[in-house]
Amino acid sequence: MGEPGLKLMREAADKFGLLTISEVMDASQIQMMMGYVDIFQVGARNMQNYYLLRALGEIRKPVLLKRGMSATMEELLMSAEYILAGGNFSVILCERGIRTFETYTRNTFDIAAIPVIKKLSHLPMFADPSHGTGRRGKVPPMPRAAVAAGGDGLLIEVHNDPDHALSDGAQSLEPGQFAQLMGELRIIAPAIGRRIA
Amino acid sequence: MGEPGLKLMREAADKFGLLTISEVMDASQIQMMMGYVDIFQVGARNMQNYYLLRALGEIRKPVLLKRGMSATMEELLMSAEYILAGGNFSVILCERGIRTFETYTRNTFDIAAIPVIKKLSHLPMFADPSHGTGRRGKVPPMPRAAVAAGGDGLLIEVHNDPDHALSDGAQSLEPGQFAQLMGELRIIAPAIGRRIA
Amino acid sequence: MGEPGLKLMREAADKFGLLTISEVMDASQIQMMMGYVDIFQVGARNMQNYYLLRALGEIRKPVLLKRGMSATMEELLMSAEYILAGGNFSVILCERGIRTFETYTRNTFDIAAIPVIKKLSHLPMFADPSHGTGRRGKVPPMPRAAVAAGGDGLLIEVHNDPDHALSDGAQSLEPGQFAQLMGELRIIAPAIGRRIA
Amino acid sequence: MGEPGLKLMREAADKFGLLTISEVMDASQIQMMMGYVDIFQVGARNMQNYYLLRALGEIRKPVLLKRGMSATMEELLMSAEYILAGGNFSVILCERGIRTFETYTRNTFDIAAIPVIKKLSHLPMFADPSHGTGRRGKVPPMPRAAVAAGGDGLLIEVHNDPDHALSDGAQSLEPGQFAQLMGELRIIAPAIGRRIA
Repeated sequence: MGEPGLKLMREAADKFGLLTISEVMDASQIQMMMGYVDIFQVGARNMQNYYLLRALGEIRKPVLLKRGMSATMEELLMSAEYILAGGNFSVILCERGIRTFETYTRNTFDIAAIPVIKKLSHLPMFADPSHGTGRRGKVPPMPRAAVAAGGDGLLIEVHNDPDHALSDGAQSLEPGQFAQLMGELRIIAPAIGRRIA
Repeated sequence: MGEPGLKLMREAADKFGLLTISEVMDASQIQMMMGYVDIFQVGARNMQNYYLLRALGEIRKPVLLKRGMSATMEELLMSAEYILAGGNFSVILCERGIRTFETYTRNTFDIAAIPVIKKLSHLPMFADPSHGTGRRGKVPPMPRAAVAAGGDGLLIEVHNDPDHALSDGAQSLEPGQFAQLMGELRIIAPAIGRRIA
Repeated sequence: MGEPGLKLMREAADKFGLLTISEVMDASQIQMMMGYVDIFQVGARNMQNYYLLRALGEIRKPVLLKRGMSATMEELLMSAEYILAGGNFSVILCERGIRTFETYTRNTFDIAAIPVIKKLSHLPMFADPSHGTGRRGKVPPMPRAAVAAGGDGLLIEVHNDPDHALSDGAQSLEPGQFAQLMGELRIIAPAIGRRIA
Repeated sequence: MGEPGLKLMREAADKFGLLTISEVMDASQIQMMMGYVDIFQVGARNMQNYYLLRALGEIRKPVLLKRGMSATMEELLMSAEYILAGGNFSVILCERGIRTFETYTRNTFDIAAIPVIKKLSHLPMFADPSHGTGRRGKVPPMPRAAVAAGGDGLLIEVHNDPDHALSDGAQSLEPGQFAQLMGELRIIAPAIGRRIA
């Protein structure tokens, strides 16, 4: 996202008391983005871009690091070390699906990565199930599963008019679907000793 | 399992009012097993053993068909057709994990297969998450996820002394762990409009 | 192939001084096939059909065992042990491609399996590159590579009219293409200390 | 490689009339490297680093682009477009192995990528079989196969004392092994209408 877009996002967030998160593609963007985003997101394709990871170790804002589509869990943890080594301890890990032979879904969401990584690491483990399936109709069961498996957070795309969204419309929920999903998650959370406000 | 083992299992089931399920490896075993088992299980390695599938289409007892470790969802459905084509409509499908590059878990449990296959087919879809992870400590989050994703049934291994089990001890739950898991599943089930007795 | 087809194949082979090979799908077919085939072929889907493998260990004719599409090299070797354990030492191993995320080719022909398995085992290692690629135009480079990598034999489909073949026409070579391929293989073979007559 | 190392490499190359190739990890390195390298290499992990690819489209030196370990052939070709779009038409593609479930080899060298990509694109297609297997003893059969499959070039690591190499020693050939390999390749090349001097 360019600077004008980030500015708009920041203004909207401030107006409604929200935090902002945006993807950083190259170390050269960090300085500019610092004024607008609360969380830096590193995409799956950059999980092993060590130049970028080291640069994010130098800042003091949270970084959400997505698992690469052919990265093992161990490699995700090793990539996180590049950020932690610089003294930035606010790292959030995120499962978003790996590449397999299955073609019906775009990626195979590796649900086991949630409990395994939570056992291996103290870092929070999020789930981004939209990219794992890539079709709106299939989205809701996956966030439910991610919460039931112990996930610490979810990336959910919501759009008030998904069919005309500028990007990722096909995997965005409508507000009504989102409200229903949240209702379901509120039922599930207590099963793992949690509570969703 | 040989005939003496099946006989013992049948007697135990009758005593406690349970159903029996056992794996059939070859069509030549069906006749003998008919007297002892309520459900025939086809293992992942036999998912494309068309001789066996056709023979199971001729009987009138339920068949639980596991997805092969490198089978697509579509191939699982096509294998089920071999049984259905013979007139045996009591087929249960089962996800148990596919083979990927990830090595920390023995297989990658493809959680998305549950909602996808339930959309493509009217057949019940079970989950066998033990084989997907293969380590006792990691088992409980996976059945929770499977139920949250809409799974119609679970294969859970329980043993009163897992460390001395004759097989699969490492992935068996102790009775106390099983009771706790069932408590968690009772909380989750209503999120998908279900109730566990 | 049913018995009438096998009979025709046997007659044609006898007339031209050739050997016959045909796929055995179930142990119940072995007895009937013994009169017609010189080599029994076990397909990729049956690589872990232990009933079939054990039955083939009891006979004294060569068995060509294909690697399953998601089998590791180690598992291929372990499957061969089921045949060898019965006293049938004439086992030929065969690489035919494994399942990966790549979709342009039907399977990914694992060329490294040839030198690796030849180092781990004394058994001859064949290559079946047609099934690995599945399109006629792509076939010739793969057998060349298999011979250069040290393969002991090739499965090549040839048909005098591929467009009207009853099966696998798309991956069959025309006689002229086959003759050209053999010419290329005669050039390559000496690089690994071999000679093709 | 830092600037002092590049300088040494340049001097050695000039002395012996060789070309130099070195990996570029980030766009910020390009300017410095221009004075020392003849070919820029983009590693598998950076195949989808679009910032880097676009920057390499602006220069006028050849770029060797390696296939990512979970990239499809189509994605490799699309990544090349980022460089070509900038007007730098000297792009060399390179297969080095993809990630699969097989664990005996580090990666699965996708030999079919050579003929397939040569059919889809006019760009030269190289092979880097060392990274595909990762063990010295297994290296020689793979370059032979790559040449037999029609590869336009090879990346071969040679070291006069592999056991004490600073990096990749385990997959480096000794000079004697390299000479033998070249002899084998000279035999194979004519099979595909080529000649190695």
